[in-house]
Amino acid sequence: MTSFVLRPVGRVESTLTDPSDAPRQPDEGAPEAWLVFDDAFAPALEGLAPGTDMLLFTWLDRGDRETLAVHPRGDLSRPLTGVFATRAPDRPNPIGLHTVHVLAVEGNRVRVRHLEAVDGTPILDVKPLLGPTPER
Amino acid sequence: MTSFVLRPVGRVESTLTDPSDAPRQPDEGAPEAWLVFDDAFAPALEGLAPGTDMLLFTWLDRGDRETLAVHPRGDLSRPLTGVFATRAPDRPNPIGLHTVHVLAVEGNRVRVRHLEAVDGTPILDVKPLLGPTPER
Repeated sequence: MTSFVLRPVGRVESTLTDPSDAPRQPDEGAPEAWLVFDDAFAPALEGLAPGTDMLLFTWLDRGDRETLAVHPRGDLSRPLTGVFATRAPDRPNPIGLHTVHVLAVEGNRVRVRHLEAVDGTPILDVKPLLGPTPER
Repeated sequence: MTSFVLRPVGRVESTLTDPSDAPRQPDEGAPEAWLVFDDAFAPALEGLAPGTDMLLFTWLDRGDRETLAVHPRGDLSRPLTGVFATRAPDRPNPIGLHTVHVLAVEGNRVRVRHLEAVDGTPILDVKPLLGPTPER
C-alpha cells in the first residue's frame, strides 16, 4: 500500500516537558501552551480567531508503532484491547487529536488553553471544531 | 524539520466513487460504508464494539498540499481564509476526520453509518470518540 509523508507545520511550546507529568486528560490540569508555526505556514493561519475552539492534530512521536493491543491506561487488570478501541499513543499511525481553545494569535504563534501535549510535540494540522464543511 | 511516514492500515469501501457526488456533510445523505483493514491490523480491532461512535482518520489523497488559503466552500464571494481556519481538503497535511457510528464488525471489516469519504480513501487510524484517556 502507498505510504504518505507528513511534514510538520510547527511545534508545541509548553512548560510540560516530562511526558510522565502530562495529565491524561486536558481537564486534569493541562497548562496553556503556544502553537508555534513555521513562518512558511503563516498564511494558513489567516482567519483563526481568539475565542474559538479548534481541533489540533499532532504527531505522538514517542508512540510505539508496532503495538496493536494494550492494557488501557497501563492497568494490567484490564483486558488487552486493540489500539483502535483505545486512545493509547502506541498505534500504527500515532496521530494525536486535541481540542484546544484559542486565547490569542500573535503572528505565527497561537496561544491555547488546556493542552496536554509536551514541549516540542510536532504539529500536523489545525481545523475548526465545528464548521459548515467537514472535509470539503 | 523531521518528516514522518504514514502507513495506511486499510481503505474505505463505499458506493460513493465520484468525489463531486460526496455530500459536504455526513447528514446530507452520506451512505453506509465498510472500513476494510489489512489483515496485519486485525488485532488492533479487538474490542471495537457495534453501537459505538468512533473517530476515523483518513488521508484526503486528492488534497493539494501547497494550498494555504481558500475561499470557504469554493464560494468566491467569501474572503480568502487560511486553511487552518477551514476544513478544506487542500492543506499541508490533508488528514480527514470523520465521526462514524459502528454498525457491525466482521473480522477485519467494520460497517459504519454516514461516511462521506469516497471509495478507496486510505484509513490512517480509528479512536473512540469519547474515552477516559485522550492521548495517553
